[in-house]
Amino acid sequence: MWKMEIPEAAIIRLSVYSRCLKDLNEKGIMDIASSDIAEMVGVKSSQIRKDLSYFGKFGTRGSGYNVLDLYTQTLKILSLCCGWSVALVGCGNLGSALSCYGGYKERGFHITSIFDNDPKKIGTMICGIEVMHIDRLEEVVKKNRTQIGIISVPDAAAQIIADALIRSGVRGILSFASVILNVPAKVEIRYVDLIGYLEILTFGMQNKNWKRPYQK
Amino acid sequence: MWKMEIPEAAIIRLSVYSRCLKDLNEKGIMDIASSDIAEMVGVKSSQIRKDLSYFGKFGTRGSGYNVLDLYTQTLKILSLCCGWSVALVGCGNLGSALSCYGGYKERGFHITSIFDNDPKKIGTMICGIEVMHIDRLEEVVKKNRTQIGIISVPDAAAQIIADALIRSGVRGILSFASVILNVPAKVEIRYVDLIGYLEILTFGMQNKNWKRPYQK
Repeated sequence: MWKMEIPEAAIIRLSVYSRCLKDLNEKGIMDIASSDIAEMVGVKSSQIRKDLSYFGKFGTRGSGYNVLDLYTQTLKILSLCCGWSVALVGCGNLGSALSCYGGYKERGFHITSIFDNDPKKIGTMICGIEVMHIDRLEEVVKKNRTQIGIISVPDAAAQIIADALIRSGVRGILSFASVILNVPAKVEIRYVDLIGYLEILTFGMQNKNWKRPYQK
Repeated sequence: MWKMEIPEAAIIRLSVYSRCLKDLNEKGIMDIASSDIAEMVGVKSSQIRKDLSYFGKFGTRGSGYNVLDLYTQTLKILSLCCGWSVALVGCGNLGSALSCYGGYKERGFHITSIFDNDPKKIGTMICGIEVMHIDRLEEVVKKNRTQIGIISVPDAAAQIIADALIRSGVRGILSFASVILNVPAKVEIRYVDLIGYLEILTFGMQNKNWKRPYQK
């Protein structure tokens, strides 16, 4: 669909711009310059223009962007128009925090089911959603036509859960486990490795001359 | 210190290998082939050898690696030998989950202080650590010689908190806010943008022909 190579970082930033535009729209602001968005999100305005250029032509030179129009376009690019059903697997401390996180819903991500294997948790409610036994995962995820799964189970169980999610029709996985999961090419996967991020910090802090490959 | 360009992804994987080697060492396993580590963490063994080659020569051709030796080397490379003091700012659902996360301590990250500005939380204990008012951040972070800060406050407060952490001597920041923070070059910063990750998934799921730039 998009002809140019699009760096992943540009898509994450597009998501940040989109959330900023949502706020602006809710405040009743109709037009905005890229320099104002830049100041709000903390990047250079040339970066914003470059990022947007991957996806088409937006705004008018000199008069900036129409907020509602650009916001709607960003939702379309990020495929956020119609809402997404999300299954959360594993509700320890982190899983519980994730299931109660209000920010998802605002962007169209609806946690429609939560699974765990701890008998004490099954049947309890977490922020309005009943925790179900993992044995019901395939049945429920198929029934809800859920396409995104969030994995926050111990490392040793992560691959089994990923396999079950994919068998049930999930095409996107966000994993908080610290093992690399084997998934077919048709499945998008991203990792949130909290320890890994901290160790990137410590490596960078102790190696200030670290040569990093050129990144677009 | 390291002469070659080292991709960030190689450092995250080194962190994953290091945690795997820790488990192996605790199980009393003394030697291991890269193919066995590969199977445990879910990457190809050629990838492991390539990743390790950025940091020196390890192991013996044919007989693999000494587990304890390689584990110790990975800790050294990642600067994890001596422990790190971490300050956590913002203890909503996510912050509380992060402060109770056992995985940090195992890798030498010790959450030594927790801050919030909600009067109801000040003085309460979260997993053994007392929540202090944000007004005390600079005093306590300086006193503890804390070098790493985790920011899990609302977006609007994130820059103010980052500034206060840096003034107090913090050199590494992990931010869960979805704004890009302005920090001096001497400070390492990484973002954990949960909504951004989900939106990368939805973009990728709807654009299976997405051309991604070459990544080492």
